[in-house]
Amino acid sequence: MTRGTLITIEGLDGAGKSTLADALVRELAARASHVELLREPGGVEASERIRALVKDPALAISPRTEALLYAAARAQLVQERLEPLLREGAVVVLDRFVDSSLAYQGAGRSLGIEEVRAINRFATGHIAPDRTLLLRISPAGGRMRLHERAEEPDRLEREGEDFFAAIAAAYEDLARAEPQRIRVIDATLPPEQVLRDALAAVEDLLVPSARSH
Amino acid sequence: MTRGTLITIEGLDGAGKSTLADALVRELAARASHVELLREPGGVEASERIRALVKDPALAISPRTEALLYAAARAQLVQERLEPLLREGAVVVLDRFVDSSLAYQGAGRSLGIEEVRAINRFATGHIAPDRTLLLRISPAGGRMRLHERAEEPDRLEREGEDFFAAIAAAYEDLARAEPQRIRVIDATLPPEQVLRDALAAVEDLLVPSARSH
Repeated sequence: MTRGTLITIEGLDGAGKSTLADALVRELAARASHVELLREPGGVEASERIRALVKDPALAISPRTEALLYAAARAQLVQERLEPLLREGAVVVLDRFVDSSLAYQGAGRSLGIEEVRAINRFATGHIAPDRTLLLRISPAGGRMRLHERAEEPDRLEREGEDFFAAIAAAYEDLARAEPQRIRVIDATLPPEQVLRDALAAVEDLLVPSARSH
Repeated sequence: MTRGTLITIEGLDGAGKSTLADALVRELAARASHVELLREPGGVEASERIRALVKDPALAISPRTEALLYAAARAQLVQERLEPLLREGAVVVLDRFVDSSLAYQGAGRSLGIEEVRAINRFATGHIAPDRTLLLRISPAGGRMRLHERAEEPDRLEREGEDFFAAIAAAYEDLARAEPQRIRVIDATLPPEQVLRDALAAVEDLLVPSARSH
């Protein structure tokens, strides 16, 4: 069994996941001896190459291929980095994980949440988040923040409104189905408040006696 | 529903799959109006790039990642080429398909046949071979033929004897479980005889009245 703690951060692009992840790791580092921040593909070479492929706007990639590629990149991250870290007892903050595929490929691409969950269970084995912080923002709000960053959109970011509305709705459904694991945080609040809410939502995981492994 | 016919060719490397595929397609072309030969990754750009990645000897790739990458490449081939061809009514001869992953990743990599079958069902949807020709050769026999070709071995071909013994045994199990679909052909016979046996094994599929679609 793993002894560490896995905290994942989820939400639409533009919700502020990276900003929260950075701030959260700084705060957690003061309270736990070994805290690591990972972002899929997490610096794992095979995963980096898979992600470059799946994001390439020039490439024709079917929804099923896309879902399998994300699962493949995730499998390698789990095996090379996440599993060893959790085995060492680290607290790992992970920017996007399986719930992203459930929302983006399962709902956004209409492949079905349960079908996508099954291939991700194959990819990740027994690894599951202890807590997931879902940053809630409307699709329009997320889009506005992305435009402000003025980055070139990748293959997925070029999708239309229906795609992102389906993803936002799926995230809400997932949170309703697993309220103990998934905590919803209002991403429209100031970053300091988002961080405070996030810390409150993971507090119980950081008290050794309250750990349920 | 698809109207075409899918014939897949399976077996260890060195069994003579490519030789048979070429000869079979030449023969079938005289009997059916539209015959196509495909080999995974089948000239599909995304699949080519995925396969290059999975075969790269320099890359660390876990068994689960490997299985998911093969499934991803296959999903794109199915969607871009195989499904359209079968919809048009073509007879498609396909050099390796799902059974390769069941044998190589399910058994060879010890991931489990049923687990690998599930992700491939996700990848291929309702497409399944009408007939599969399994070229039976011993692992030692296949290896000897590969050495004769004197090609640089790829990441999978570098594996040891146990790996290929497990694959050969899995192919036999698959054939026993589905004797109507999978026909075993002795690959140590001369190529002309292998072709004759292959033709006999698909003959019933080419008589329109005997088709069971």
